[in-house]
Amino acid sequence: MTIYYPNGQPYRKKGEETPHEDQRQVTYGHRGMTLEEDLNVSNQYYLHSDQAVIYKKPTPVQIVHVDYPRRSAAKITEAYFRKASTTDYNGVFKGKYVDFEAKETTHANYIPLKNFHEHQVTHMDRIRRHGGIGFIIVKFKKSNEVFLLDASVLSECWRASLKHGGRKSMPRTLFLKKGHLIPQHFMPRLDYLRVVRDVYFN
Amino acid sequence: MTIYYPNGQPYRKKGEETPHEDQRQVTYGHRGMTLEEDLNVSNQYYLHSDQAVIYKKPTPVQIVHVDYPRRSAAKITEAYFRKASTTDYNGVFKGKYVDFEAKETTHANYIPLKNFHEHQVTHMDRIRRHGGIGFIIVKFKKSNEVFLLDASVLSECWRASLKHGGRKSMPRTLFLKKGHLIPQHFMPRLDYLRVVRDVYFN
Repeated sequence: MTIYYPNGQPYRKKGEETPHEDQRQVTYGHRGMTLEEDLNVSNQYYLHSDQAVIYKKPTPVQIVHVDYPRRSAAKITEAYFRKASTTDYNGVFKGKYVDFEAKETTHANYIPLKNFHEHQVTHMDRIRRHGGIGFIIVKFKKSNEVFLLDASVLSECWRASLKHGGRKSMPRTLFLKKGHLIPQHFMPRLDYLRVVRDVYFN
Repeated sequence: MTIYYPNGQPYRKKGEETPHEDQRQVTYGHRGMTLEEDLNVSNQYYLHSDQAVIYKKPTPVQIVHVDYPRRSAAKITEAYFRKASTTDYNGVFKGKYVDFEAKETTHANYIPLKNFHEHQVTHMDRIRRHGGIGFIIVKFKKSNEVFLLDASVLSECWRASLKHGGRKSMPRTLFLKKGHLIPQHFMPRLDYLRVVRDVYFN
């Protein structure tokens, strides 16, 4: 039996292995729903209500060994997680290419920049240069606030962080000032496309 | 030592396992280059020459078991290949969302429709409805011709094939009539974006 903390996270003994996010069971109700789960059900809602076609990309895996048993499915017996060279989500909305990365933070007042990778920042710079829409979605778990922030702001913070004494995180106040709070409903759970419509289409 | 047939395919003894495409080694020179390899190097060329941002999605894998050894990388010890719910390639070109699937055929005069899946056809229908550009790239290996064909034509053939006595393949003559031959150079190896520019932008 799994015991849960009040925040919805499962209790684990010290040294016990943490399952990878792809294996994790969906927890009861909305409690403990991860940002990824919320986005996946929202994207399904957008797909089925024919508003947009946006998917999460599969987790990149380096396959080393595969068994091919007769009469049954090929079984991968050795593989490793690879770092993604792009962001996790992309698709099309009102004829425009949409591309984003989603992250949660447990810190009340900031998100460390190490949640993102340099090649993701480069990727989103390219997307914007080619006329696509690029942004990040960040959830502050303590306050349950989810923000959308244009990728150009991430890019600025990233460049500033590389300078001597540069700040290595993005403060919540920056999201309040330059970002957009995403409305949370029953369906879609995270209505980020409403924000995209208001911010990028006029 | 691997022995190669004149067509560039490796010789294997009967019963010997065929490696999955993700494991296959790149063969010498251009001989035996798969369509996927040609597209990957072309996409890298487009990326580095700043013409477009288009990637192949990772192979979708259902992860069943992961070992977390201390002091080393997480090792996936049981996983299976999943069917993709979308197409393999997408990205942004001149502000437009671009989405396609690529297939090879060894038949000189047709490609069987079973190379595509119903959900891929549905996906490309959605893409077009939302203002994206959707197409297929098909390589006829015998003649070394590579064609781009709008997804609407695939969709028509698919619907026709479901009728009683409907044709279950797409003939090469259809590609000659409604498709566009993709120029092959040294760089980019398959200049499909030149065709996209001519066909979808004016």
